[in-house]
Amino acid sequence: MQVGINCDMGESFSLYKLGDDKGIMPFITEANIACGFHASDPNHMRTTVELANSYGVKTGAHFSLPDQAGFGRREMKIERDELANIIIYQIGALKAFLDVAGVPLNHLKPHGALYGMACRQEAVAHAIADAAVHHGVPVFGMAGTVQEEVYLSRGLEFRSEYYCDLDYNDDGGLIITREHTAVDPNKAAERCLRAVMEGKTDSINGKELAVRVDTVCVHSDTPNAVEVAKAVRNALEPYIEQS
Amino acid sequence: MQVGINCDMGESFSLYKLGDDKGIMPFITEANIACGFHASDPNHMRTTVELANSYGVKTGAHFSLPDQAGFGRREMKIERDELANIIIYQIGALKAFLDVAGVPLNHLKPHGALYGMACRQEAVAHAIADAAVHHGVPVFGMAGTVQEEVYLSRGLEFRSEYYCDLDYNDDGGLIITREHTAVDPNKAAERCLRAVMEGKTDSINGKELAVRVDTVCVHSDTPNAVEVAKAVRNALEPYIEQS
Amino acid sequence: MQVGINCDMGESFSLYKLGDDKGIMPFITEANIACGFHASDPNHMRTTVELANSYGVKTGAHFSLPDQAGFGRREMKIERDELANIIIYQIGALKAFLDVAGVPLNHLKPHGALYGMACRQEAVAHAIADAAVHHGVPVFGMAGTVQEEVYLSRGLEFRSEYYCDLDYNDDGGLIITREHTAVDPNKAAERCLRAVMEGKTDSINGKELAVRVDTVCVHSDTPNAVEVAKAVRNALEPYIEQS
Amino acid sequence: MQVGINCDMGESFSLYKLGDDKGIMPFITEANIACGFHASDPNHMRTTVELANSYGVKTGAHFSLPDQAGFGRREMKIERDELANIIIYQIGALKAFLDVAGVPLNHLKPHGALYGMACRQEAVAHAIADAAVHHGVPVFGMAGTVQEEVYLSRGLEFRSEYYCDLDYNDDGGLIITREHTAVDPNKAAERCLRAVMEGKTDSINGKELAVRVDTVCVHSDTPNAVEVAKAVRNALEPYIEQS
Repeated sequence: MQVGINCDMGESFSLYKLGDDKGIMPFITEANIACGFHASDPNHMRTTVELANSYGVKTGAHFSLPDQAGFGRREMKIERDELANIIIYQIGALKAFLDVAGVPLNHLKPHGALYGMACRQEAVAHAIADAAVHHGVPVFGMAGTVQEEVYLSRGLEFRSEYYCDLDYNDDGGLIITREHTAVDPNKAAERCLRAVMEGKTDSINGKELAVRVDTVCVHSDTPNAVEVAKAVRNALEPYIEQS
Repeated sequence: MQVGINCDMGESFSLYKLGDDKGIMPFITEANIACGFHASDPNHMRTTVELANSYGVKTGAHFSLPDQAGFGRREMKIERDELANIIIYQIGALKAFLDVAGVPLNHLKPHGALYGMACRQEAVAHAIADAAVHHGVPVFGMAGTVQEEVYLSRGLEFRSEYYCDLDYNDDGGLIITREHTAVDPNKAAERCLRAVMEGKTDSINGKELAVRVDTVCVHSDTPNAVEVAKAVRNALEPYIEQS
Repeated sequence: MQVGINCDMGESFSLYKLGDDKGIMPFITEANIACGFHASDPNHMRTTVELANSYGVKTGAHFSLPDQAGFGRREMKIERDELANIIIYQIGALKAFLDVAGVPLNHLKPHGALYGMACRQEAVAHAIADAAVHHGVPVFGMAGTVQEEVYLSRGLEFRSEYYCDLDYNDDGGLIITREHTAVDPNKAAERCLRAVMEGKTDSINGKELAVRVDTVCVHSDTPNAVEVAKAVRNALEPYIEQS
Repeated sequence: MQVGINCDMGESFSLYKLGDDKGIMPFITEANIACGFHASDPNHMRTTVELANSYGVKTGAHFSLPDQAGFGRREMKIERDELANIIIYQIGALKAFLDVAGVPLNHLKPHGALYGMACRQEAVAHAIADAAVHHGVPVFGMAGTVQEEVYLSRGLEFRSEYYCDLDYNDDGGLIITREHTAVDPNKAAERCLRAVMEGKTDSINGKELAVRVDTVCVHSDTPNAVEVAKAVRNALEPYIEQS
């Protein structure tokens, strides 16, 4: 049993800083790098790729709906073809910086509202798959959703995420908010360990849910994100996959 | 002696149409495809790549300053590193659509104000070179300028453009306007033929200028662009390079 | 019985032209002027206000979801407060140009997807009302919808629109497409006359629908928009309201 | 002798926070509120107007070149008419929120690169004046520059700023950087007091410069901005103008 730890990285923009990427990077194994549509810009994409690379962290594309003002956390209704093209564009832009750094594209992950929509809407999941099939890398997402089903049906590799800092609904869905609040690092680490070892977690109402953990997601914009990442890494160290 | 005919393509955006790409594509050999920073969007990038491909036209990246509202025709002062990253991003985004279509990146060409700045400012030409060196494809530009000098010093292949539909200053510089006006197709064709055969053209004031023509640029947003492209192609047919 | 004729104006952007505003302006009484969020920019807002003014056409704000790439025709999920602020911003921006021209704000009209959402979603209609209450001018919209209900409940004046160039569903809803196709000018004029005189129109399936016409909407981006506007104006001339 | 203390406020955007507006607001008399072109968005504009209002701080428009990705700190070459329209748009957008809050527009101030350009380029200063003449409120700027000259020639009221946290060149020009570094609060306060009482300040090279202080500018994005604002306010308290 081996797991990764992933984190959304490179979400600063212009003069604006978001997330302590330097503090978190040492504790993760997979960086989901923003592509400029919800956050980041060419400068931050380049420095984030370099930062990940300096820690041997694998680099994936964290693409979004085109909504910088809403940080990609507002749902938009976009046709499958157009959405696929929007995603292709973003992955290509990130790949350019990976090419410069001489590292491969490791994975794909939809951001924010797009992530949530892909869990429920077939056309959205297919749009992601339309872009992903050109790359032959795994897509991160929520197991047991339309997302997983569609990706697998399209021959894509799927990696099931466990969220250590977000609450789950009773039906296993994530509660995604526009801003994240602090979580207890120890509880987050314990949740992760239980999820990895037992395949179980509790919903916000205390209902036991079955989960599969290929990779644990730690957010960078919780106020104490570094502590959370560190605690999770320490707890999961024996299970961390080797590249 | 062999020349190409290039044209800025894929400059439509959202519902907005610009240029008769379908009408012009049959007459050119190299399409400079907008990358979303002065014009275009992921949908139009995809369809433009497909259109070029259907005519066997080679495809290059036509990157710009980040200025959609000004169509990339307003100068901006951007540091070399940031500018290089902005260009890397755009080339990568286009390459994604080339990859989907299974065609290679053929060339690079700065757009509008960036083109003009690269003719005069070393740091700008170097920023373009910083991005270009990762691709090993020729850069289109104005011979006898800082642009050419810098590209060659960086080991890049340079292709000298001749503009059939823009006026030249007495010092050989182009007069770039925000909107293009109609030109006489026959005169444009004659200008090109003379430029190709004799290496000469007249400035707006009638001064004879020496020019080197590796590729002729035809604009798509002159009102009679298709006629101009057709006339230029017919005149240059014996000299058109075979791919 | 008196009616107005309104049209979405000033939807050009940067170098891109959309709609023959000069051709249509003579035939309308109320211009809905884009505010830069789905179309237009400060230059086009200024010239459109001046154009309307030169024909004595009244000027209203045609605000949108923040979605230039989708021309405001893609639904977005935005909280009521944020949406209200987005609308306040746009109305203010337009009002600045009205102030420069010395003309008052005459009316308000949501654009595209926002218009459709306001017909069905209370929170969206309230967000529009939150902005509108500061201005004391009528809001244009679809009668018999949530939109009308909410506006009236907020003490706003409501003007019921009839669309001469869009199809109606059997339930009276509009069929809004991202691009508009040509319509027969005579049929459009006849539809309008019937709607004004009898208060009736046929759905796309031939079902008779009751309609109330305070103002007829003519689109500027149908291919033959000028002919449609002219025919509608001629047919409705006896009913046109005097300012 | 009476002075104001002004600060650029409301420069947060989307999820991104910039500057401790709540911490600084108690110490200033005039808030320069960002209008969405270099920073801010409709939500932050509204809350910033409300915050200023709650402290009785006067509210002005802090308009910018259209360059969010560069935080308005990159020069752009824009024609006078277009630039004037861009400024008119921004002032109008802010005024909408002032109208909602029931407070008047108190002043105008160009941001970043636009500010610097207005000090040197007549056409830029005139573009600002083209927008300002519609409002009859003072414009903040650097005395002894093209800016002051042009504004006065256009019949505008001009208020001379003194920058307590930026270095001056030997010729009296400001050294504007993309990011601001911490300054010593006591030294900043002393500089201000000397500037107000003696009309003198030292350049970065120790050269004594004559300055006129109608209002002192404190930046919100220096790391210790609150301390600087507090120290400056305390030092200048006897000279603070009463509204």
